[in-house]
Amino acid sequence: MVFALTLSYRGAAYAGWQRQKNAPTVQQTVEEAVSDLLGEVVQITGASRTDAGVHARGQIAHLELTREFPLEGLHHGTNQRLPEDIRVLGACRMPDGFHARKCAQAKEYRYSFIRARLLSPLDSPFALQVSPAIDLDVMRQAAALLIGEHDFTAFALAGGGHRQPVRQIFSLDWIEHGERLELRITGNSFLRGMVRSIVGTLLEVGLGRREVAELRDLLKGRPRSEAGPTAPAHALVLERVVYPQRWRIDPAG
Amino acid sequence: MVFALTLSYRGAAYAGWQRQKNAPTVQQTVEEAVSDLLGEVVQITGASRTDAGVHARGQIAHLELTREFPLEGLHHGTNQRLPEDIRVLGACRMPDGFHARKCAQAKEYRYSFIRARLLSPLDSPFALQVSPAIDLDVMRQAAALLIGEHDFTAFALAGGGHRQPVRQIFSLDWIEHGERLELRITGNSFLRGMVRSIVGTLLEVGLGRREVAELRDLLKGRPRSEAGPTAPAHALVLERVVYPQRWRIDPAG
Repeated sequence: MVFALTLSYRGAAYAGWQRQKNAPTVQQTVEEAVSDLLGEVVQITGASRTDAGVHARGQIAHLELTREFPLEGLHHGTNQRLPEDIRVLGACRMPDGFHARKCAQAKEYRYSFIRARLLSPLDSPFALQVSPAIDLDVMRQAAALLIGEHDFTAFALAGGGHRQPVRQIFSLDWIEHGERLELRITGNSFLRGMVRSIVGTLLEVGLGRREVAELRDLLKGRPRSEAGPTAPAHALVLERVVYPQRWRIDPAG
Repeated sequence: MVFALTLSYRGAAYAGWQRQKNAPTVQQTVEEAVSDLLGEVVQITGASRTDAGVHARGQIAHLELTREFPLEGLHHGTNQRLPEDIRVLGACRMPDGFHARKCAQAKEYRYSFIRARLLSPLDSPFALQVSPAIDLDVMRQAAALLIGEHDFTAFALAGGGHRQPVRQIFSLDWIEHGERLELRITGNSFLRGMVRSIVGTLLEVGLGRREVAELRDLLKGRPRSEAGPTAPAHALVLERVVYPQRWRIDPAG
């Protein structure tokens, strides 16, 4: 039987999603909670291998069990064994063949900014401070150039284990609410560090340190060193993972 | 010379604003930072004595110094000595006679809710989970009854040191954004625990456990035991303190 979990977590205390030898990760923490609940070693596969410090509102992960298990028990029993910075928001039974990463059609990420001289401690855990003078119009123009299928080598950190650098971005929207600013990016899949490298590069455009037109050149497979810096992890959230209708995740179980 | 500081803090690690013998408080932490900066013992008075666990976005505090001190130095020198969960957002010089609490005309508090079955760890530090079925219309009706000058004894915790229980509420607004819900309360001053007792009582109305009309009776000086429970502190933020024009706080210093 295949089960899907909808997971939300604060990433601050974890070295990212993926299991590592010498650092606590979200995958390992969830695997240990589920394994303890079921009394057997369970492997969990996430749709997105979020980096160290990156948060998730709607990460999807799957696990395979050799026997039936009640959904409510899986859901609440896992939560009872998890620290408070990781929660299972839903559990559902999936048809055979479901794979959280391979079946995903799109992922949506959100990067949060506060346009202010200083950040309130109420915002600092989840947002990046930027100058109130940042030019949103040119960042919108630059973002528009990234939409579509491109070679994102210039925006990829080493170590992602990706064979090819072509990815498709479906949408890239800047959303304003007062001093808050959000970048929402949806794409079919992302190279390692890609969202944060895009953010760092767009900020350079917004701060007048890079021309909008340079984005076009970067998308021709330029090396990582030519794009902007990788923006900090703490302001990035994996918002949701989208699946085709046949793999629909039922949030109610 | 009198100086005003605009302070923002996460309240989770503190036993409230006011200095106590055996627990860390925000007042004590800021006093120690400023005293260390100036090389003399400085007392700091806050506009609001926020309770244990309550946050602030725009707390105002004042201090008196026997000598001039550069504002930028006071601002940034204090921040260098504060933990990251407390920030000075601004410092300004005030006319003699300014007192952060006594001169305040109004205070605005915000209480945050998420209408969902389970709370994401991204929301849980700053919001309360409530049933998606909660009835906002009746909570709006009940909130409207609280506006104006009333005896708020039924909503006051012991130990506030208040001589009289009559307070004036200027506005009480429920604001919706998707599953998020906020209650914004502005009043001239508040009894100890008053905002949270109002929240706990309005939630009872919204969940069908109390009639709207009961609010009228509670405002006739009924005892604390007849109102609803005190809602948790972690979802409450002191948003701002309002002063009359002659005591205007200049956020830029």
